[in-house]
Amino acid sequence: MRAAVVLFSGGLDSSTCLAIAREDGFAPHALAVRYGQRHEHELRAAERVAAALSAPLKIVSLDLRAIGGSALTADIDVPKDAPIGSGIPVTYVPARNTVLLALALGYAETLQAQDLYIGVNAIDYSGYPDCRPAFIEAFENLANVATAAAVEGGARYRIRAPLLTSSKAQIIQRGVRLGVPYGLTHSCYDPDAAGRACGRCDSCRLRAQGFRDAGVSDPTVYFPR
Amino acid sequence: MRAAVVLFSGGLDSSTCLAIAREDGFAPHALAVRYGQRHEHELRAAERVAAALSAPLKIVSLDLRAIGGSALTADIDVPKDAPIGSGIPVTYVPARNTVLLALALGYAETLQAQDLYIGVNAIDYSGYPDCRPAFIEAFENLANVATAAAVEGGARYRIRAPLLTSSKAQIIQRGVRLGVPYGLTHSCYDPDAAGRACGRCDSCRLRAQGFRDAGVSDPTVYFPR
Repeated sequence: MRAAVVLFSGGLDSSTCLAIAREDGFAPHALAVRYGQRHEHELRAAERVAAALSAPLKIVSLDLRAIGGSALTADIDVPKDAPIGSGIPVTYVPARNTVLLALALGYAETLQAQDLYIGVNAIDYSGYPDCRPAFIEAFENLANVATAAAVEGGARYRIRAPLLTSSKAQIIQRGVRLGVPYGLTHSCYDPDAAGRACGRCDSCRLRAQGFRDAGVSDPTVYFPR
Repeated sequence: MRAAVVLFSGGLDSSTCLAIAREDGFAPHALAVRYGQRHEHELRAAERVAAALSAPLKIVSLDLRAIGGSALTADIDVPKDAPIGSGIPVTYVPARNTVLLALALGYAETLQAQDLYIGVNAIDYSGYPDCRPAFIEAFENLANVATAAAVEGGARYRIRAPLLTSSKAQIIQRGVRLGVPYGLTHSCYDPDAAGRACGRCDSCRLRAQGFRDAGVSDPTVYFPR
């Protein structure tokens, strides 16, 4: 089986991506980035889900707090109960998916993998510019001129974004068929100390609505309001 | 003055780039990455040179050792006295310039800068694929679809590689005119504990030849052979 690198956060989308990579016939290698998140719950979820899906997990540390500019990495409050879809939210991390795919590309080159999975989604995407098809295509073009494997070795990279045009409900329905353990995943931007979800940030609300729309029981543990 | 981000290692090329960015009329912001180098001498040089050129310096930590695959980040010997230009060397770091430019892009977005300088060089480039014009162009295309500033704010990023077609001697001659303090810069891949250069790795030899060809006295401190 050929290796593929799956960008992995332990969230709903990237966990579904990991299962899809395996369904596509690859041996998925999960890559998570400790990028100065306010909380480590996301990484604990990544460890739980990768173990449950029997995929190796690599965690790379990158201190994006030094760059700042986002509620997820700097000292800005995560918005609650705000309208979704009205412009780019403060939880946007500058150039995040560019950085993550760059790291995935480096990891792929060392694994001799040519397939990179990223769980971006252009429908329920919360307004991030680096979750759009034009971005994915531009990164694929870059990858194929950026590495020794491509330039000297004839490798042909593919950036696979299998959730790009799915609704959250469709993602969940597909993941349920593939046995994704959603109860182990973590999506909340602002959990409590025990890692329980707030239920009010953009990420929580998109996720909860997805379970409702999919007709799937929501396994998320929320903290009391 | 508009801000520009300059990828900065404290080496000969990026120090020259910083001076060129200022000559071009920008307020240069240096960005260095602690990426699991074997030694910290490069970062000390970055601090010395940035201070001498009165530019703010930001250092971002990124543990590329977790990815491995290079003599500069993994436990592989740096080659000495090897022929230069015979294929991609083991000092190649997988996707390094992709990762560095991604970080520079994120930093640029927080600074509201649109100009990114990188001191890559396609002539004396030691065989790295991500030092070629095709790579620079592909990254510029990516940047202009990747960020909120570009997609919503109308920013137009430019990746500036002013040394791309210069020989090492031409770089040095230009830098001397701009007052670059080459005696403070560090280029060696394998210095001794005091930070003195080995004189035998690819980087040392290209640098020493550059000073000879430029007719400029080499200020590098080498350790005894």
